[in-house]
Amino acid sequence: MTKNIYKGKVVTLNLETVTLPNEATVQLEVVRHPGAAAIVPMKENGTVVLIRQYRHAVGGYIYEIPAGTLRPGEDPRACATRELEEEIGYRATALELLVSIYTAPGFADEVIHIFKGTGLTPGRQHLDRDEVLEVVEVPLEKAIAQIQDGTIRDSKTIVGLQAVYLSERTRAPNK
Amino acid sequence: MTKNIYKGKVVTLNLETVTLPNEATVQLEVVRHPGAAAIVPMKENGTVVLIRQYRHAVGGYIYEIPAGTLRPGEDPRACATRELEEEIGYRATALELLVSIYTAPGFADEVIHIFKGTGLTPGRQHLDRDEVLEVVEVPLEKAIAQIQDGTIRDSKTIVGLQAVYLSERTRAPNK
Repeated sequence: MTKNIYKGKVVTLNLETVTLPNEATVQLEVVRHPGAAAIVPMKENGTVVLIRQYRHAVGGYIYEIPAGTLRPGEDPRACATRELEEEIGYRATALELLVSIYTAPGFADEVIHIFKGTGLTPGRQHLDRDEVLEVVEVPLEKAIAQIQDGTIRDSKTIVGLQAVYLSERTRAPNK
Repeated sequence: MTKNIYKGKVVTLNLETVTLPNEATVQLEVVRHPGAAAIVPMKENGTVVLIRQYRHAVGGYIYEIPAGTLRPGEDPRACATRELEEEIGYRATALELLVSIYTAPGFADEVIHIFKGTGLTPGRQHLDRDEVLEVVEVPLEKAIAQIQDGTIRDSKTIVGLQAVYLSERTRAPNK
C-alpha cells in the first residue's frame, strides 16, 4: 500500500507499506526519482572536464561531472549528451557506459547511468537559471588525488573518475 | 524560507526558497537526512565481507558494504563499528576513514562516511526486523570485476571498494 505524501518537480515522496522477504511488514519512506545520466568528459591528453557547481542541498559549491535528470522516457545516452553540451560546452564523439549506480537505495530509487565521453569537440554551453557552475579542467591523476584529500566528494563523480582511472591502468599497467 | 512537507523517521522533505549566487530565486525540493556511516571490512587474505540486502526502494536484493544511519550526535566511527558487528558479526581492530561522500547532492544533503575496517575478529550479528540480508565474502579483485559487470551497483559500496583497491595498488604497484 502506497500513501503519497508529495509529488514535486524532481522527487515524489511516498510512505510504502511492504511485506519483506522475512515476512515482517514495515512502513518505509521512499523517495521516487526519475533517474539521471552523468558523463566523465576525457580529453586526449588525460585531462578530465569537471564542473564546480553550487548545490543548495549541501550548502555550497562542489566538484561534479556533468549530469542531469532524465526526462520522461529519455534515453540515458541522449541525456548525458545533452548535459555535456549544456553544462560544459563540449560534444563527445564516443560515449561508453561505465556503470549504473543506485545513489541512496536505503530511501530512494534513483539510478544514475555514468558514461565516459571521449573525442570532445567544442559545442555551446547553455545553463538553466537554477544552474550556477564553472568549468574546471584537471589531469585525471590530480582528480584521483582530490578524491583522496576530500576535495571531490560527490558520489557519482567519484565512481566515474575511479572507474575511468582503473580501466586505463588495467589497459596500460605499470611495467 | 523553508516549508516543511514531511518529517519522517529517516527523511525530512522541505520546499526551500533560496537565492542562488547568480541572484536567481528558486524553490527547491530538499531531502534532509541525518547522514550515515559505512565500512569496507577487509580480511587479511584480501577478501572483502559484503552483504546481499533486500532494498524495497530499488525493488530487490543488492550488494552493499555494511552501513547505517547516524543516530543524533553519533560519531561516524562509532556508527560504522556498530553496523559492522550488527550486520555481519565482525569487529574491526582498526578503522581508517577513506572518504566522505554526498550521495545525491541535487536533492538531498546525505553524507556517508566510508571507512576501511581491518583486523577483523568474530562478534555477534544482530539484525533489526526490517533488515533482510546475507553475508557474502568475495576476493577484492572479484568485487572490482563485479562493479564493472554491473553486479555491484550501490554507490557507497563502489566508492569504498574502488578506494581500497586503488590504495592497495598504489602501495604495492606492479613491477
